[in-house]
Amino acid sequence: MPRFDPPDVLLLGPGPSPVPRRILDALARPTIGHLDPRFVGMMDELKELLRFAFQTGNALTLPVSAPGSAGMETAFVNLIEPGDTVVVCRNGVFGARMRENVVRAGATAVMVEDAFGTAIDLDKVEAALRANPGAKALAFVHAETSTGVQSDAAALCRLAREHGALAIVDAVTSLGGIPVLADAWGADAIYSGSQKCLSAPPGLSPVTFSARAVEVITSRKTPVQSWFLDLGLVMGYWQGSGARAYHHTAPINMLYALHEALLGLQEEGLEAAFARHRDNHLRLRDGLAAIGLDLLVAEAARLPQLNAVKVPDGVDEAGVRRRLLNDFSIEIGAGLGELAGKIWRIGLMGAGSTPGNVDRVVGALAECLGRKAA
Amino acid sequence: MPRFDPPDVLLLGPGPSPVPRRILDALARPTIGHLDPRFVGMMDELKELLRFAFQTGNALTLPVSAPGSAGMETAFVNLIEPGDTVVVCRNGVFGARMRENVVRAGATAVMVEDAFGTAIDLDKVEAALRANPGAKALAFVHAETSTGVQSDAAALCRLAREHGALAIVDAVTSLGGIPVLADAWGADAIYSGSQKCLSAPPGLSPVTFSARAVEVITSRKTPVQSWFLDLGLVMGYWQGSGARAYHHTAPINMLYALHEALLGLQEEGLEAAFARHRDNHLRLRDGLAAIGLDLLVAEAARLPQLNAVKVPDGVDEAGVRRRLLNDFSIEIGAGLGELAGKIWRIGLMGAGSTPGNVDRVVGALAECLGRKAA
Repeated sequence: MPRFDPPDVLLLGPGPSPVPRRILDALARPTIGHLDPRFVGMMDELKELLRFAFQTGNALTLPVSAPGSAGMETAFVNLIEPGDTVVVCRNGVFGARMRENVVRAGATAVMVEDAFGTAIDLDKVEAALRANPGAKALAFVHAETSTGVQSDAAALCRLAREHGALAIVDAVTSLGGIPVLADAWGADAIYSGSQKCLSAPPGLSPVTFSARAVEVITSRKTPVQSWFLDLGLVMGYWQGSGARAYHHTAPINMLYALHEALLGLQEEGLEAAFARHRDNHLRLRDGLAAIGLDLLVAEAARLPQLNAVKVPDGVDEAGVRRRLLNDFSIEIGAGLGELAGKIWRIGLMGAGSTPGNVDRVVGALAECLGRKAA
Repeated sequence: MPRFDPPDVLLLGPGPSPVPRRILDALARPTIGHLDPRFVGMMDELKELLRFAFQTGNALTLPVSAPGSAGMETAFVNLIEPGDTVVVCRNGVFGARMRENVVRAGATAVMVEDAFGTAIDLDKVEAALRANPGAKALAFVHAETSTGVQSDAAALCRLAREHGALAIVDAVTSLGGIPVLADAWGADAIYSGSQKCLSAPPGLSPVTFSARAVEVITSRKTPVQSWFLDLGLVMGYWQGSGARAYHHTAPINMLYALHEALLGLQEEGLEAAFARHRDNHLRLRDGLAAIGLDLLVAEAARLPQLNAVKVPDGVDEAGVRRRLLNDFSIEIGAGLGELAGKIWRIGLMGAGSTPGNVDRVVGALAECLGRKAA
């Protein structure tokens, strides 16, 4: 069997996003021990860098040793106990996944439903919180990767606080691309992924928990159902001064890569990164409009980093994606769930968000569709 | 904040083991999409390579997207349901971790206890299985990383089968270093880790499940408590012909590295790899004996890849490890649990198992202890 040499593909789908060479090089640095004092020093830096990315002073801020789905599960299994009620907003695929997590933690999920492609309706959320006094948490997706919609995280966190509920926020696709303000929002748990706007390879899930969330975790009545994701144990490795208690073997090289990716974000600056994502989104919008393609989401709710493009009538949705991949070496995403076949998803995430990439994908789409810019 | 440049350390602890440059280079190849047909082709090769490593034809053979502890949890949460009884052997730290997994799955763990540093007593296991008819599973650690002990996996799997119980085997430290014979043993679930005798970085957990185990999983009465580790969902991504259903974003680059590591194992051949581990273990044993150091474990139960060395009376256990790391750039491991302070753990795993490394660690230990070879 020969070695595997991946082709060079421009990743403009819903993630993973393009990983810059400097981050791939960091990934390939020599593996050292997970209890080596130098490695522990790097872990401390990583926590600081993540606090910067999340705009938080939260002590409990670290990367979970598995992809974003495990970050989601970390939030639910640590904060929720059997018998709890959680208000879950669903306006895309990932809201449905949150419900799965709630149910498997033995809790009741009260669903607030909005159409795929629209933002979460604050009035419906308020009504659900009123109708369920004592709800333990409100859970919602800040940036719905399945639809390209951004919801009002600040307002949703405020509603949660007003009703005494914890705010659990999915920021998998938002972190690094649009403002994620853990402290200013008063969010209690936020999880993200390494492979979207942070431009690291997939496999890690940065999370941050408020002091209030930590209190909820430490005063649980039942053990966390997952041993691997039990933050009470994970904290023994990631926190404390001096020696760290072994819990599991950290994914050493992946952590090198995330460290390097966050250094890059710090060098660029958050505001500059957000402006870049915004500018390239507008360039894409204009380029698509010029070849007669429309975005699914209303302007006010659009994510700059994930653009849901309506597939024109009569066009072979999968055929176009296949041609983009095979003839132009560009990956874009398909629709998920009820949007399958109806949209393409063009990601301009992290290092992938450049004017050159916008022009390349618009040009390739124009060729595939036989359209010329108006 | 400067970039993190890890020092060059010879990893002769309990894992991670030294990662060869060719595997680090594979890790750094360009990231492509987790649904790209070329990536899916690589996944199929990876399953074949893992079947070779596990010596099995099991269809359900794949790497879990997280470290070995998550592989352990995958086995328990998929096979065990609330109300089940599991006989768990504990002769080291990882047997205790198995118990935690059983309890958190809502099942009862019947413990079979053996002293740390000794192999699992087959008679006690048989008595426990007799005393608990209807036990759903027998769970044991093949290679106890905390003590350097090897137990008789073939005989333990046979006992499980004779009593109608599933055999769940921890092979985190054994896979690639000593024979792991999934089919010949009749094991129902085996999990391992990427960072021991396979010489890949930490972060993945290869697992294999028998047809009988798959039947148990598909006929569960309750949902798997973990969404992330639910094999019913994971299978939709890793199995089937043609298009794969998105479950979570696979850790692309880590999978490149595991693929390359397994190619290396295939090139060397399993028997040659086992012989190399055995030969270097004997060289270490002799080298240690020459400077008056003894192994903890009786000869018949010794793991070649993980050597528990008794700390001589009056020697500063942690001080020696610190000096090895700081002055000789060699990492060895401390004792865990009841063996903390009493042993050092010297790993000769995967690419780390070479005569040169044996001589280097023995020489450095001799200097630290002020001893000369007899």
